[in-house]
Amino acid sequence: MNILVMGAGQLARMMALAGAPLNLKVTAYDVNSDKIVDPVSNQVFALDLANAVAQADVVTSEFEHIPYPVQEVCQQSGKFFPNSTAIKAGGDRRQEKQLLDAAGVANAGYRIITNESEFYAAISALGLPLVLKSALAGYDGKGQWRLKTAEDAAATWTDIAAFMAGAEHTLPQAIVAEQFIRFDREVSLVGARNAKGETVVYPLTENHHVNGVLSVSMALPAPEDLQQQAKQMFDAVAAKLDYVGVLALEFFQVGDQLLVNEIAPRVHNSGHWTQQGADTCQFENHLRAVAGLPLGSTALVRPTVMVNILGEDHVDAAVLNIPSCHLHWYGKSKRPGRKMGHINVCGQDNAQLADRFLALAALLPTDKFLEVADVAKVFAARHQQS
Amino acid sequence: MNILVMGAGQLARMMALAGAPLNLKVTAYDVNSDKIVDPVSNQVFALDLANAVAQADVVTSEFEHIPYPVQEVCQQSGKFFPNSTAIKAGGDRRQEKQLLDAAGVANAGYRIITNESEFYAAISALGLPLVLKSALAGYDGKGQWRLKTAEDAAATWTDIAAFMAGAEHTLPQAIVAEQFIRFDREVSLVGARNAKGETVVYPLTENHHVNGVLSVSMALPAPEDLQQQAKQMFDAVAAKLDYVGVLALEFFQVGDQLLVNEIAPRVHNSGHWTQQGADTCQFENHLRAVAGLPLGSTALVRPTVMVNILGEDHVDAAVLNIPSCHLHWYGKSKRPGRKMGHINVCGQDNAQLADRFLALAALLPTDKFLEVADVAKVFAARHQQS
Repeated sequence: MNILVMGAGQLARMMALAGAPLNLKVTAYDVNSDKIVDPVSNQVFALDLANAVAQADVVTSEFEHIPYPVQEVCQQSGKFFPNSTAIKAGGDRRQEKQLLDAAGVANAGYRIITNESEFYAAISALGLPLVLKSALAGYDGKGQWRLKTAEDAAATWTDIAAFMAGAEHTLPQAIVAEQFIRFDREVSLVGARNAKGETVVYPLTENHHVNGVLSVSMALPAPEDLQQQAKQMFDAVAAKLDYVGVLALEFFQVGDQLLVNEIAPRVHNSGHWTQQGADTCQFENHLRAVAGLPLGSTALVRPTVMVNILGEDHVDAAVLNIPSCHLHWYGKSKRPGRKMGHINVCGQDNAQLADRFLALAALLPTDKFLEVADVAKVFAARHQQS
Repeated sequence: MNILVMGAGQLARMMALAGAPLNLKVTAYDVNSDKIVDPVSNQVFALDLANAVAQADVVTSEFEHIPYPVQEVCQQSGKFFPNSTAIKAGGDRRQEKQLLDAAGVANAGYRIITNESEFYAAISALGLPLVLKSALAGYDGKGQWRLKTAEDAAATWTDIAAFMAGAEHTLPQAIVAEQFIRFDREVSLVGARNAKGETVVYPLTENHHVNGVLSVSMALPAPEDLQQQAKQMFDAVAAKLDYVGVLALEFFQVGDQLLVNEIAPRVHNSGHWTQQGADTCQFENHLRAVAGLPLGSTALVRPTVMVNILGEDHVDAAVLNIPSCHLHWYGKSKRPGRKMGHINVCGQDNAQLADRFLALAALLPTDKFLEVADVAKVFAARHQQS
């Protein structure tokens, strides 16, 4: 079976690696170069998008910022999973918030802002502090502002207005203002839904971000009630979208309550731990869902930590001495802050994982892997046997 | 790092899939077509062997029947791991038996036969029954005979003489006559040795052959003394060959004693379970060894069974409903008896594995998967909770 992925980055690459054993051949459409490529070898095929879509058995996506005309070609083929509505909801903060409301899942109060008077109206309606996010093309901390006090409002609006004027989009840009949530931690749920409406979800993952970019994800046995709460929200959102494939929900946890922060209509960085820690990895489960194969078990095999490698193309090979420690490079050229790879490490229980996480963190330079050592120490303090 | 594999079959393919996350780019030399290929996509590169060897950082092998002139090119490069002596020992039963004796590891008594008088001398020296194996190109049960009684000797010799006359080899063919071992079971040990002489081995695997071809491998926690015995033999053989890479030893177990039956200087079918059941799979560990990276932990994560798919290009997709069950297709065209893929299934303990193995066997047609259901039933009788 031939599967064409919109986007030719690391997610398509890892889909291809997961698909090969199932005889699922994954090729990718590179939106930037307008070429069809092998996302592992980078071989370029003499095919245009229309022909590639025609030849594919299934078309899917690795990211939500696919140009609408490209999505239209995919959607028209009748074999695009997840569908364009889902992709658009992930790529436009306005549609995302409306979806969350329509699905009846808890999320932060919000207003949509397109001009200065709406900006001040949002402040009045929602109160301060506020988080302001660009509706389009906002990801990994870009296009976001925080407004804490009324005195800063004018300066913040000046920044936002400049951003909106400078942004080049074929679609109308806007800002979504949201109530600032004082969360206890950030967690995410990655799951898969098939065309029959069956769903499976992985254990909730605890995420640590640095400057808005994911740094560490930790998958441990999750409290049953919290897992159930997340699963219900996953099912509600996925059903609303008639979703097929892997979908990720990012939450703020406040006490025992979860609020959806955002959704990602694709395999997700916070699910990379599943390559070593789950019965079936998220890449295989995404392919199974879109290819009409049975969904795979999402059971946690072992507690697992994932650490992102950002802007670096080398780590001390000694990390491979740590049992169960796996390096996943994306074969990309080095750029500051770029997601270059990740490291998974597992333990038979949380205590063993804590030992290994500390050993790993000790090999990662603290000026390149910001806050990783701190997260490891906190984790060890909570779980290490004394 | 670029790694060139001699041989472009499923073992090179699975090396490529395991190497990509480590940024190890695996290409393969197809001995039959004399072409350099991507063993996953089958893309053909415009390179001849000499240039491919020159461009590679490391040259390795997926099989032992590499023509000697090709081995010579590899060996001359100074970057061929394992070395040609090891490959030849795996490809020539004479050298293999001499190696086992030189390493001081227990193996069945034998004589080398090139003519009729040596044949009868072997019968006198070793007694009956005898197993007779072609020295070259014998694998998966081909080129083997059993002689049980003196009355059958003349007929067996006629067969062997015809085989030797018919075989086309650039090297002198011979037959190795071996004492028939009444073994209790067949087990194998897969391990890796690096250039520093460090070794790691996986748990002993119990193997079931049908018509001389591996059908089922089972990796369970192994008895410590037996594991130690196998490890010592592995170390002795690997050290004798100054071996670098993954090496497999196949044993006959007689009571508490192991006799080496044969060695395979490569990743091995009885190690495929490591893809789901071990901390580091054999393909990754082979690449780590030849690339000079740290050897990975060989710890058993979960008891695991592997079932070979022989001569079939389809299995009931319902096998993917069994938790932890993974399909590994090799992307090959169908031929009777051909190794087309394998299935791995794991359990948290032997009892859970027994349940899943039975569920898997129930989905595999008994006329295509010979004896698999029987092996599953015996396993379940031993391990299933009542």
